[in-house]
Amino acid sequence: MRNEFHDALDGLTADLGDMCGRAGAMMRSATMALLEAESSEADRLQVDLKRLTSLGAAVHDRAYSLLALQAPVARDLRTLVAALHIAADADRMGALAAHVARTAKRRYPDCAVPPEVRDLFDQMGVVAVDLAALTQSAVLACDAEEAERVSAGDDRMDDLHRQLFARVITDRWQHGPTAAADVVLVGRFYERFADHAVEIARRVYFQATGTHLGAASSRL
Amino acid sequence: MRNEFHDALDGLTADLGDMCGRAGAMMRSATMALLEAESSEADRLQVDLKRLTSLGAAVHDRAYSLLALQAPVARDLRTLVAALHIAADADRMGALAAHVARTAKRRYPDCAVPPEVRDLFDQMGVVAVDLAALTQSAVLACDAEEAERVSAGDDRMDDLHRQLFARVITDRWQHGPTAAADVVLVGRFYERFADHAVEIARRVYFQATGTHLGAASSRL
Repeated sequence: MRNEFHDALDGLTADLGDMCGRAGAMMRSATMALLEAESSEADRLQVDLKRLTSLGAAVHDRAYSLLALQAPVARDLRTLVAALHIAADADRMGALAAHVARTAKRRYPDCAVPPEVRDLFDQMGVVAVDLAALTQSAVLACDAEEAERVSAGDDRMDDLHRQLFARVITDRWQHGPTAAADVVLVGRFYERFADHAVEIARRVYFQATGTHLGAASSRL
Repeated sequence: MRNEFHDALDGLTADLGDMCGRAGAMMRSATMALLEAESSEADRLQVDLKRLTSLGAAVHDRAYSLLALQAPVARDLRTLVAALHIAADADRMGALAAHVARTAKRRYPDCAVPPEVRDLFDQMGVVAVDLAALTQSAVLACDAEEAERVSAGDDRMDDLHRQLFARVITDRWQHGPTAAADVVLVGRFYERFADHAVEIARRVYFQATGTHLGAASSRL
């Protein structure tokens, strides 16, 4: 039987899905800014991040009140604790997207990304946005199988990140230390964005099943 | 009046303090390995990280059981939710220390850190270890004032990180892209280590006071 408490849980879930969607949209804009040497996105993403953070703060406060007032157990308890973690991870994903856009702005009107790694950032951007979308639907459906698929997407990101690093640290790199520094750091931002998506997926998996996904317990 | 529940909370706090202490010790070893071009620390820190992670998993499971069985409110509730977050942040600090040691191993027998940034990594190592120690005592004492002092230490880390980046991206950098990539990434590991210490401090502050420390709500 539905009641106000479960309506409140549904409201939290909807907001968390919204946060994942916003983080993905932010990374899409940030990747465009990076590849097209846009400077204006950085300030816009800073505004988006403020909004994302305040959404997370609202989720945190509501989850806390529900924990205190409803004394939930079993899956309801897992849902509320997961909400606290997921809000933090989705906020972090948005912050990493903002970092990417800031790097693009710092090098404007130049492009922070040299031609020979452009394809990798293009792919990392696609993988990051896909992961955010997959995470969003896993959160909204509280679906353990979708949560498992996020980990697979993260393997792809790790592979791209390894390729990126390998291209920078060869003697053929002709773009100097500034470009090398930008490329490895921005690559790290994409990799961490994907890691936080996986963290969210693991929370969803635990929320749905009460058991930990794969090596999830090793990342508690 | 004391009871088993509060003894269990004290046990969680002791384990969380232990985790912060271990993360600090790991970063001390990692910094030595980085500056002295040691390769053996990397494997030892991998073992330390496994132990840290299993401690965190145990804290997580006990905190969950207490949430479910005791239906805590007010400060007890904040303590248990903080424990879930602090265990995750302390585990992450240990993982970052392991990353530093792995970079040292990757360049062995060379030193991943060129002479002209050695002083900065030396200082970043000191600040990181100090922050971990300060965080440990804030956790153990659940002391809001000590928690506030952690943020000040983080400002120092951010300043060192800025100096590091500035030294790499000058035309005077003579060490090629591999060293540039290593230096900015390892610098990032130290900066993130400090950020997680601040996250823990914010959790402690909220646990102790029920209010958010400074901009803490923006990092939920």
